[in-house]
Amino acid sequence: MDDTAWQERLAALENRVRQLEDEVAIHRLINSWGPAVDTGNAEAAAALFAEDGILESDLSYLIGPAAVGAMVRGEGHQSLIRDGSAHIPAFPVIQISGDEATAIGYSRVYRHTDDGYEVWRVSANRWQFRRTGEGWRMTRRTNHVIDGGRAAPRILGQLFE
Amino acid sequence: MDDTAWQERLAALENRVRQLEDEVAIHRLINSWGPAVDTGNAEAAAALFAEDGILESDLSYLIGPAAVGAMVRGEGHQSLIRDGSAHIPAFPVIQISGDEATAIGYSRVYRHTDDGYEVWRVSANRWQFRRTGEGWRMTRRTNHVIDGGRAAPRILGQLFE
Amino acid sequence: MDDTAWQERLAALENRVRQLEDEVAIHRLINSWGPAVDTGNAEAAAALFAEDGILESDLSYLIGPAAVGAMVRGEGHQSLIRDGSAHIPAFPVIQISGDEATAIGYSRVYRHTDDGYEVWRVSANRWQFRRTGEGWRMTRRTNHVIDGGRAAPRILGQLFE
Repeated sequence: MDDTAWQERLAALENRVRQLEDEVAIHRLINSWGPAVDTGNAEAAAALFAEDGILESDLSYLIGPAAVGAMVRGEGHQSLIRDGSAHIPAFPVIQISGDEATAIGYSRVYRHTDDGYEVWRVSANRWQFRRTGEGWRMTRRTNHVIDGGRAAPRILGQLFE
Repeated sequence: MDDTAWQERLAALENRVRQLEDEVAIHRLINSWGPAVDTGNAEAAAALFAEDGILESDLSYLIGPAAVGAMVRGEGHQSLIRDGSAHIPAFPVIQISGDEATAIGYSRVYRHTDDGYEVWRVSANRWQFRRTGEGWRMTRRTNHVIDGGRAAPRILGQLFE
Repeated sequence: MDDTAWQERLAALENRVRQLEDEVAIHRLINSWGPAVDTGNAEAAAALFAEDGILESDLSYLIGPAAVGAMVRGEGHQSLIRDGSAHIPAFPVIQISGDEATAIGYSRVYRHTDDGYEVWRVSANRWQFRRTGEGWRMTRRTNHVIDGGRAAPRILGQLFE
């Protein structure tokens, strides 16, 4: 086999491995949100977002890491932490395209109560990501509660567009 | 190092990378079910199955993609969607063997109610897959509810056989 | 390209692929716990742990696979199985460093009741692993219930240390 053929075969493999590593990195970003917000670590939650990152839900529309951090420090969120909360995303479907990526999937918030646990919130999510100099960051997370309304199915349905 | 040694080393690596990509593809198939059925996308749900694919549960025994699509369009399922439902599989254990694969794991259905959410169904699953010309497809999903009966532990126990 | 350059490039790729395979192996270990304990397979549950492995929680402090197996055989656990239980970890964040690894994440136990399902326990976990001659094994699992107390956030917070 000549040098050019090796070169191409090795380069193809390097690209495939990088894509697999990107999947792992994006799962890590998604799965770091819970440990950040359930411990009240506003800086860690904010740092998951790009400088122009947006967190959009039925509850709020936050622009930039500082706004995300402020939400974590806010009384609504702090009362959830005091009860005992677990923000748990499900295993999403990730699509990577060069330096951008999208994930579609579910998330749940479990909340501790006097009687045990309630499933406090079940949502549909679309996460968008960009590869930056410091690794992947969230550029937008759109989150809508699943309650029979149209917003959540609209998000989930984007997987098939 | 001579050409043959390179050849072997590179081919071994290509096989390992393909196996990792197969894992990702199979997770994607499993995790696309929820977004399909919770949005009532009967075509997308059906397309996850091979032509001879079977969906077997306590509730039904469906043969072929058309039967899966009909279940999604049926009144039982449509009423679940109207309430607001989330079909969420857990992270399963996948075993790949060439062009066939098996996954063992849990799934849950959360259902929106007037009082919030109920965990409507928790099940054990065995998914079986085949690599086709269009990628991996489900050849069989066996799903049994976890209720203290023997069917669900029988499925989960196959992980250790 | 000369032989040394190829050698280095291929070796680098082999290391990256091994790291990805380690991730898969560690997920498999974590996700085998549920199928073992929910079917009462004490041997399979014990075999996930290294000889000196420790399972530490609010409920118990178990040293070694035999103690883990005895817990599975114990009346408390057997009554959970009779009701119908599902021990489901969430997708954790894994850090691998050579032949050791750590994972941080959530887990839940769903329990079947006369009225359907209850979320019986939601916990924070740190799993520690060692690569052995027989593959990865758990050297310690620390599990604390999420109830507003300090133990669970302490575990989750270690992701950012």
